[in-house]
Amino acid sequence: MTQQLSPTERSTIRRGSARARTERSDLHEVLDASLICHLGVLVDGAPRVLPTGYGRIGDTLYVHGSTGARSLREAAEVCVTVTNVDGIVYARSAFHFSVNYRSAVIHGRARQVTDPDERWQALQVITEHLAPGSWEHARQPNKKELAATAVLALDLTEAAVKIRSGGPVDEDEDVEAGKAWAGVLPLETRWGAPEPADDLAADFEVPAHVRDRRYSA
Amino acid sequence: MTQQLSPTERSTIRRGSARARTERSDLHEVLDASLICHLGVLVDGAPRVLPTGYGRIGDTLYVHGSTGARSLREAAEVCVTVTNVDGIVYARSAFHFSVNYRSAVIHGRARQVTDPDERWQALQVITEHLAPGSWEHARQPNKKELAATAVLALDLTEAAVKIRSGGPVDEDEDVEAGKAWAGVLPLETRWGAPEPADDLAADFEVPAHVRDRRYSA
Repeated sequence: MTQQLSPTERSTIRRGSARARTERSDLHEVLDASLICHLGVLVDGAPRVLPTGYGRIGDTLYVHGSTGARSLREAAEVCVTVTNVDGIVYARSAFHFSVNYRSAVIHGRARQVTDPDERWQALQVITEHLAPGSWEHARQPNKKELAATAVLALDLTEAAVKIRSGGPVDEDEDVEAGKAWAGVLPLETRWGAPEPADDLAADFEVPAHVRDRRYSA
Repeated sequence: MTQQLSPTERSTIRRGSARARTERSDLHEVLDASLICHLGVLVDGAPRVLPTGYGRIGDTLYVHGSTGARSLREAAEVCVTVTNVDGIVYARSAFHFSVNYRSAVIHGRARQVTDPDERWQALQVITEHLAPGSWEHARQPNKKELAATAVLALDLTEAAVKIRSGGPVDEDEDVEAGKAWAGVLPLETRWGAPEPADDLAADFEVPAHVRDRRYSA
């Protein structure tokens, strides 16, 4: 048995419901494939959307930031959205142009993480999500750095996953007219050559976890 | 004289202010370089963040969607965020890992566009942003399609632009210790080979605006 997402009123997909996915494994895949999320919070009654890194342990998403960041301090009801763009869908009509994408929209009440062990694990997965292999390679946080870092947890219970793939869906008469090109222009993302820091020793070899990193999206 | 962004209380960058840009041209560049934005709206008192296409005419941003989409109908105070990820910054300490990016966060009250000419121009720039050259190549919207499309306008007056580039900023003692690799792993995005639709005539040549498209980010 695979686990199903449990849609609530606000996580039920109404527009383009053919693209909705209901498996929890789809949610995990979308989250694991992207580098950053967009965190939506309320500040003074208005929405604020900020790009930030994240990490995942099971069905909990973690984000971190400065303890001075207002968006993290005041976060309560939040929305975290992760979007992978896979290509542009060219249709015969402007109306049917689209984007191939895999996205997840998560709603919930963010929890400030205060337990030292959970904070440590959260910082580890956030670092590993951004740069796999780096938690063990780099120096881990010291007391002062920990004190300056706020960690928020978000339960993944209430989430909507949408995936669009494949070619355009055109009107029959436009297909028959045959006047416009139609198809997909795929977007490809990959890592370039590592660029050593200016203050790195010239003979410091690029470690395997950087050199061999694969783009997972 | 270049035009300056006019920061308000909420568009003043507090965290990482060294990364803040104040030229309106920087805002335009960040917006023009990305494919999608993340639109933050309030629904039932909670933030909701949705990925969507957009277009720009001067200092007005346009987004569109189905007239049935609740997020567009009810949008009033919105936040639109555009993020280009350029690379991962590997530091000597987990604390100083970072992302090279160019982002814009725009706050404002969205306006439903009702004027037919402005709606038409908005749909044109949204299509051209997603797929340059397509407005003239594809069939333009008919009456029925126009009636099904909601268009929102957002003034770009209140915006914050942040750009991070370059290598890590490490603690002196970590640089001296010389134990970890440090530098940037650039993220490269480009178009793959066009994939014609299944129902496209086999001899339909890929037009120049698709074949020669350059990734602008």
